[in-house]
Amino acid sequence: MTNYLEYAISLAEMVDGQTGQNPPVGAVVVKDGNIVGIGSHLKQGEAHAEVQAIHMASERCKGATIYVSLEPCSHYGSTPPCALKIIEAGITKVVYATKDVSLEKTGHDVLEDHGIDVTYRPSDRAHRLYDSFFKSKSQQKPIVTVKVSCSLDGKQANDHGESKWITNKKVKQDVFRLRHEHDAILTGHQTVLADDPTLTTRIEEGKNPKRFILSRKGDIQFDQQIYQDPTHPVTIITENENLKSPYEHIEIIYLPKCEVEQILNVLFERGIGRVLVEAGPNVSSQFLTSSFTNQFILYYAPKLIGGTGQYQFYQTDNVNPLDQTPQFQIMNTQMLDDNVKLTLKRK
Amino acid sequence: MTNYLEYAISLAEMVDGQTGQNPPVGAVVVKDGNIVGIGSHLKQGEAHAEVQAIHMASERCKGATIYVSLEPCSHYGSTPPCALKIIEAGITKVVYATKDVSLEKTGHDVLEDHGIDVTYRPSDRAHRLYDSFFKSKSQQKPIVTVKVSCSLDGKQANDHGESKWITNKKVKQDVFRLRHEHDAILTGHQTVLADDPTLTTRIEEGKNPKRFILSRKGDIQFDQQIYQDPTHPVTIITENENLKSPYEHIEIIYLPKCEVEQILNVLFERGIGRVLVEAGPNVSSQFLTSSFTNQFILYYAPKLIGGTGQYQFYQTDNVNPLDQTPQFQIMNTQMLDDNVKLTLKRK
Repeated sequence: MTNYLEYAISLAEMVDGQTGQNPPVGAVVVKDGNIVGIGSHLKQGEAHAEVQAIHMASERCKGATIYVSLEPCSHYGSTPPCALKIIEAGITKVVYATKDVSLEKTGHDVLEDHGIDVTYRPSDRAHRLYDSFFKSKSQQKPIVTVKVSCSLDGKQANDHGESKWITNKKVKQDVFRLRHEHDAILTGHQTVLADDPTLTTRIEEGKNPKRFILSRKGDIQFDQQIYQDPTHPVTIITENENLKSPYEHIEIIYLPKCEVEQILNVLFERGIGRVLVEAGPNVSSQFLTSSFTNQFILYYAPKLIGGTGQYQFYQTDNVNPLDQTPQFQIMNTQMLDDNVKLTLKRK
Repeated sequence: MTNYLEYAISLAEMVDGQTGQNPPVGAVVVKDGNIVGIGSHLKQGEAHAEVQAIHMASERCKGATIYVSLEPCSHYGSTPPCALKIIEAGITKVVYATKDVSLEKTGHDVLEDHGIDVTYRPSDRAHRLYDSFFKSKSQQKPIVTVKVSCSLDGKQANDHGESKWITNKKVKQDVFRLRHEHDAILTGHQTVLADDPTLTTRIEEGKNPKRFILSRKGDIQFDQQIYQDPTHPVTIITENENLKSPYEHIEIIYLPKCEVEQILNVLFERGIGRVLVEAGPNVSSQFLTSSFTNQFILYYAPKLIGGTGQYQFYQTDNVNPLDQTPQFQIMNTQMLDDNVKLTLKRK
C-alpha cells in the first residue's frame, strides 16, 4: 500500500511554522492509483490544504479519495468549510490522521451524512504535529518554545557575563531555523543590554519573527542595535506606565503585571501562533516554570563553566520538592558537531 | 574478508574493566580459513590473550595467522613476552590493531626480525579502547571516570539536599554496571554523610570495586552503613594525621595534601587501574577540573530543580574565561528510558 496519508502529513510538516494560529495541514487527492492533486495550508487566512488539492485535481476529483493530515473542517471560519468543498467536488472517500478536537461540529459526521466513506486512521507522527496546537487553541495562547544554550553545568555565561561563544556555529544555524519557524521571538531587556542582538533569521529565505522585549521597569536604552532599523518593528512589554516610544516602529505595551499568562494573552491577541523565548536566566526561568510552555530546546556545549552560577539558566526563589519540579519528556537528541541538542516536551 | 581483527577487538572489549592496570586484549588464531584458537587477557598477572589463543590452537599454530587487538609485547613483565610465544608456536603471520606506545622495544620489530609477516592495521575502535590506558600508564595514574547524575540545570539535589531520586531506575542499573567495570570507587565524606550509601554493584555476577572515601578533615562517623561490613574493606584518605581506624577492615591513608594528583598516585600504588569518582559537588568539581580525568559520564533527568544551586554539580572558586574552561568531547548519547546519558572524553 502506498503511504498517501504519510505524504499528506509530510506536506503538513513542510509548512509547520508558517501558518500562524492555524494548524499546518497537508492533503493528497488520489484517483485510480495516481496522485492527481496535492495541497498545503500555506498561510493563515488563505486556502486550506484540501481546497488547494481539490483545485489542482479539478474534474478528476469525481470518485477520488482525499488523504488529509487533519480532519477536514466543517465550519465557516475565515474560509468556507472544507467538508463542503469535498462534497461538492465529488470526492467519495476521505482518510485523515488526526481528529480535530478543537471544533464543536466534526467534519467526519458531516461528510458521512453526505454518503462519503470516511476513515480516521490515527498516526503518532500527525499527533505530535497537532498536540501543541490543540492545547494552544483551547487556552487561546501561542505555542511556546523556550530555547537555552549552555554548558554541561547549565550556565549561559561565566560569572563575569562572558557568553560569546559557548555553543558552536551549527547551533547558531539551528537557532536561525528555530526563529524562522516561529511568528515571534521574546527576550528580556537584560539580554538586549548584555548582547545587543538583532534576533533575526540569517538563513536563505529565512523569515524574521516579530520581536518582543520584556522590560518590567521599562528602563530602555533606545540606542541599542535592535531599535535602529525602522523596517524591523519591535514591541516592548512593560509595567512602566510612563514609558513612551521615541520611534514609530517601536510599540510599547503597558501591562499592570508582566507575568507569563498575561504576556501570552497579549501575543495571542496580536495574532502570534508560536513564540520562541530566547532570553537570560530571569525570563527563561519564568517560562520554564510555567505550564503554558510547550517545548524546550536545550543545546549543551561539552564544557564546564563553574563559578557560583550567576548565569545558571534556571533559577527560582522557592525550593521545590523533587516531585514538584517542572518535568519534561525528551523527544529527541541530536548531535550538532560537538554540541548536543535535546528537544523536550513540557509534561 | 572475514573480520578476524574485529573479533579480536570484541574479545578485548569483553574483558574491558577486569584487567586492572593491564590493557584488555583479545586474540584470534586462524588457520586455513577457520578459527583454531581464541583468547582474552582475563586478569592482571595471568596469561596474555595471545598465550591463551596459542594454547587453544596448539599444534595448529604452525603456519597460522594471529589477529591481536594490541601489538604483542616483547618484554618480560609478570609473564614472558608474547612475541616469543608467537615465534615458538610457529605462527607465520601477525595482524594487530593498535601500536603499543607504552613499550620501549616494539613487538612488531622483534617478530619481523624472526621472519614473521607483521601487519599493523589501525582501527578507531581499538584506538578508543586503549587511548586512556596509554595516558594512564605514562602518567602512572589510574584511568579516571567521573560520574554525575543531575537535572537538566545541573543539580544533584535541591537546596534542601533532597536528592532521592532525580534520575530513574535504568540509570541506577547503568551505574551498577559502571561500578562493575572499575577497580575502585572514590567518593567524598559529605556524600557518605548525606546518602549513607553502600557503593556496591547490585547486578548479576557484578564485582564490587574497592571503596575509597576522601575526607580532608577526617571527621568520620564510623556508624555509617559503609563502615559496617567487615567483608567489604574501606579506605579513608585524609589530611588528618590523628585519624585512627576503629576496625581492621578500615584502612586510613594520611596524605599531607589531598589533591587529585596525590590521591591518584596513592590509588595507582595500590594497584588500581580504573577509578570511578561518584561524589557530590566538591569532589566532582575537583576531578572535573583536573586534566587527569579521562572520562565523564553524565546522566540528565528531564526536570528542572532551580533554587540557588547549592548542589550544582560543578562549582569553582575562580571565574575562568570561556576558552580556559574544561572541555570535553561527546563520544556517545544514549536514552535510558526518559533519562539521557552522555559519555564524554576529557580534552
